[in-house]
Amino acid sequence: MLCCNETERTQTQVDAKNAEAVIHYAGAELFVGISPSGHALAIETDSTRSSAPTPMELLLLALGSCTGVDVVSILRKKREQVTDYRIEVRGERRAEHPRAYTRIEVRHVVRGRNLSEKAVAQAIKLSDGKYCSVAATLRPAAEIVSSYEIVGEEMTAGEA
Amino acid sequence: MLCCNETERTQTQVDAKNAEAVIHYAGAELFVGISPSGHALAIETDSTRSSAPTPMELLLLALGSCTGVDVVSILRKKREQVTDYRIEVRGERRAEHPRAYTRIEVRHVVRGRNLSEKAVAQAIKLSDGKYCSVAATLRPAAEIVSSYEIVGEEMTAGEA
Repeated sequence: MLCCNETERTQTQVDAKNAEAVIHYAGAELFVGISPSGHALAIETDSTRSSAPTPMELLLLALGSCTGVDVVSILRKKREQVTDYRIEVRGERRAEHPRAYTRIEVRHVVRGRNLSEKAVAQAIKLSDGKYCSVAATLRPAAEIVSSYEIVGEEMTAGEA
Repeated sequence: MLCCNETERTQTQVDAKNAEAVIHYAGAELFVGISPSGHALAIETDSTRSSAPTPMELLLLALGSCTGVDVVSILRKKREQVTDYRIEVRGERRAEHPRAYTRIEVRHVVRGRNLSEKAVAQAIKLSDGKYCSVAATLRPAAEIVSSYEIVGEEMTAGEA
């Protein structure tokens, strides 16, 4: 929706925590974005040069970290011992403009000691359906498909 | 959508340009995301500490830079002389979990010499409706409201 007259816009209540991001054009297809919390980030829009993350890549990073912190937090509450954790995120896009994501695969690789598979599955499900704000923002456009892998942590001789 | 068995998943064709982002949990509510193009980014999920952009902030930065490069590119083709350009992005979120964006305001502040207002409006409209892949991904969830401001560039005495 496009409107050009400031006075025509309705008054809205803006989330204080997401006050305003400012994105400056830095020339040569580069941008410097300053997040509402005041952190600057170089953003690349020339994918051939590829000097920094692109706008569409940022969506994948946002989704992975958003669901990741939910899972970490839920597993911690369940007293599960996670020793390493990564999230792999793959996106598929429309072939035509606008090249929106249509499907995003999120794979959680959780390493730990005696991890409960049920707890991991439940944490991911809770993030997916209830807590992850990024997933909820992307999902109407893109199907989000989650999966997981649990890697057992071997105890060393000294710990046995 | 949650599934736990790799073999049950259907084969999908993944956009090579968006192969895989990997987000590593770095402890203490911090993540390091590596974009598909191989660029690392610290991501903060403790908004009180606020040491880096948060996942939800990344969505605003992605939107601003995505629409920004469209506008820059279209105005360049129209031979408009842009001397400075920034995009201000504000998001409103649901009060309840999941706290998805429901409305995002995008304000384009374009500075230049004898800029055509019509050209600026048209560039924004084309990005909004046709080209910006991030806007197309976010729009089903969040209403995106664009506006613009044109700032005239004064010529210096030497140039007059």
